[in-house]
Amino acid sequence: MAQIGATPDGGCRRLALTDEDKQGLELFRTWAIEAGCRITQDAVGNLFAERPGSGTRRPAVLIGSHLDTQPSGGKFDGAYGTLAALEILRTLNDHELETVAPVVAVSWANEEGARFPLPCTGSAVFAGTLSLEEALAQRATDGPRFGEELRRLDMAGPEPPGERRVAAYLEAHIEQGPVLESTRNTIGVVTGGQGLRGLAIRLTGSEAHAGTTPMEHRRDALVGAARIVTAVNSLPARHPEALATVSRIEVEPGSRSVIPGRARLLVDLRHPETEGLDRLEARVRRLAAELAAGARLEVEVERFLAMEPVVFDDGCVAALRDAAERLGEPWLELRSGAGHDAVYVARSIPAAMLFIPCRNGVSHSPEEHAEPEHVRAGCDVLLHAVLERAGVSPRPRPAPSAA
Amino acid sequence: MAQIGATPDGGCRRLALTDEDKQGLELFRTWAIEAGCRITQDAVGNLFAERPGSGTRRPAVLIGSHLDTQPSGGKFDGAYGTLAALEILRTLNDHELETVAPVVAVSWANEEGARFPLPCTGSAVFAGTLSLEEALAQRATDGPRFGEELRRLDMAGPEPPGERRVAAYLEAHIEQGPVLESTRNTIGVVTGGQGLRGLAIRLTGSEAHAGTTPMEHRRDALVGAARIVTAVNSLPARHPEALATVSRIEVEPGSRSVIPGRARLLVDLRHPETEGLDRLEARVRRLAAELAAGARLEVEVERFLAMEPVVFDDGCVAALRDAAERLGEPWLELRSGAGHDAVYVARSIPAAMLFIPCRNGVSHSPEEHAEPEHVRAGCDVLLHAVLERAGVSPRPRPAPSAA
Repeated sequence: MAQIGATPDGGCRRLALTDEDKQGLELFRTWAIEAGCRITQDAVGNLFAERPGSGTRRPAVLIGSHLDTQPSGGKFDGAYGTLAALEILRTLNDHELETVAPVVAVSWANEEGARFPLPCTGSAVFAGTLSLEEALAQRATDGPRFGEELRRLDMAGPEPPGERRVAAYLEAHIEQGPVLESTRNTIGVVTGGQGLRGLAIRLTGSEAHAGTTPMEHRRDALVGAARIVTAVNSLPARHPEALATVSRIEVEPGSRSVIPGRARLLVDLRHPETEGLDRLEARVRRLAAELAAGARLEVEVERFLAMEPVVFDDGCVAALRDAAERLGEPWLELRSGAGHDAVYVARSIPAAMLFIPCRNGVSHSPEEHAEPEHVRAGCDVLLHAVLERAGVSPRPRPAPSAA
Repeated sequence: MAQIGATPDGGCRRLALTDEDKQGLELFRTWAIEAGCRITQDAVGNLFAERPGSGTRRPAVLIGSHLDTQPSGGKFDGAYGTLAALEILRTLNDHELETVAPVVAVSWANEEGARFPLPCTGSAVFAGTLSLEEALAQRATDGPRFGEELRRLDMAGPEPPGERRVAAYLEAHIEQGPVLESTRNTIGVVTGGQGLRGLAIRLTGSEAHAGTTPMEHRRDALVGAARIVTAVNSLPARHPEALATVSRIEVEPGSRSVIPGRARLLVDLRHPETEGLDRLEARVRRLAAELAAGARLEVEVERFLAMEPVVFDDGCVAALRDAAERLGEPWLELRSGAGHDAVYVARSIPAAMLFIPCRNGVSHSPEEHAEPEHVRAGCDVLLHAVLERAGVSPRPRPAPSAA
């Protein structure tokens, strides 16, 4: 899979709904057909590979992730969970195991939100938190609409998104953070997704000559902005479950000899609980007002993004935790900080995730790397959780002839 | 003069060596000829309007400033000092006064350094701190070389720059800062020009996911940069003659959910003494190293600009101070923070400047404004200083018939 869209530096570039993304999906489809699966696609571009269960009316156990990447992405983000799902279907074949519930591997459309602006487009439409119309109408950074590209590449199918009956969704993913590696655990049992608030802070002072304006006359927007950056960075010291980041700063006019008159900051706040997010946001607003006043600046704070925290399904979380415990893999409970398909799916379907370590916590980079033994451990734990959720029939099922 | 290149918002746009700059210079030439002056131009585009003195071998007293503006400039920066010089020649005519030394009004080429990169091109070549070749070779932001534009507009003459013998150079200018206005003085007697150091600070940390990277694992380049901004801003509290500004900050990658991995700051340090500049620069380098280490960042500090302080000539400063005192104008000694033609000229010729207040300290803006009574006061003080420097002949001289 990593050969499709491979970059010279060892990374991958399979932007959503490009020729490379299509090639990746077709390879996945080919492998799934070889594994004897029935393929369907829904109208937003999600691809499902179904291995039927003995209980034909049982809702499915859904496993998977996404195959699209960031512009300068790695080999593991998304591809790991999607191929882990396929590997589980193959392993069920190899062991001639029949599950009671169908097991369905899914590749979700446009998880990254890199070429098209709405991240987790496929899973959000599937979960009903985003309308199909809105999904299809979004425009790529290079121009075309999502729906146009789906048609051009023949990447959609007739199935209405979200009609499929699902009992559980489980997703394996690299951690995209350093906690598992630094604590020497191989499995992160993800209990939910943090909530997110995005705040834009605008500071207005006065442009003035850096060589002629006495310090006490200044209304330096960057000086106020710097104090806010420092204050935001120190928030988690008093709110231990929080993450707080100023990810962007823009200062004008940016001329060497001119005191900055305007500054704009983007603040990214994360917390596992809505009340925690509320407290953090209120604290940032108060700090911004106080620090701006101290630097004689005007300030505006605008919330431009809000995602509520998600708590994963107890049963799904327990299935992953018990599997890790049974298999003797050292595990740790984690919250997901990044957005994931599972976080969207969980709005309407019982879901959970497992993480495996990635080197130095790096992702969205050609440097992205996961150790083979961690890749294997994640697949094993996922397989055992799938068996627990789907149920195992007493009788064996011969492997499909195509395999 | 303000009608040439007038902008709808009340400002002026006469970029150096454009058709507007040429029109401005031609208007000045016309007025100077009407005042009976002999016009010469040198090879770098400086224009001189000479009113002879009785002592034909005495070196001249030179007065003036520049007529070019910033892209969105005002009516006063440069134009005030140039027209004040002309007004003094007219006033000498009106009063039928003959000076011993010739009095020469000058309009210097490309003071602003806005269209062409080398500020004070004309005065720097005149003073010998910049070669004529380098001046003529510099390229405009819109393409052509300085020498090409001089030829196209016929704005140069045969005189080799700097050959003219000059006893003193005096320049009137708006303050471009708030000190005179806030202290209710009408005349700033400028005793010299601050020195300047420009430092570029590069900080390198690690890009990482804002939603997954624990605070204690971060190497956030913006957090380090913010601490440096705060520290630089507080330097003048312990170095009272200093000005310290971080005028530009650039942070990468600037994505909402990514911890900044790289930051670049431009630091502008000013001090009236070289030793003070050395201390400030050393302090910034030490602070940058300490604060970067504290945030686990790599740091590089590069000095990209250095201008040594200039101390104006005692006799010229005294002439301005005594004139202000005699005329009863409230005056204050100041250092020039901005670059000025006088600061360059002073490298080789006795020179000084006077400032008049400008509203809210604003310059390089259509908002630039000086009160008529301050404009008049500056002219009066300049006139009396010129008379002191040039000497007055005992016999009157009739006004030129052309006037």
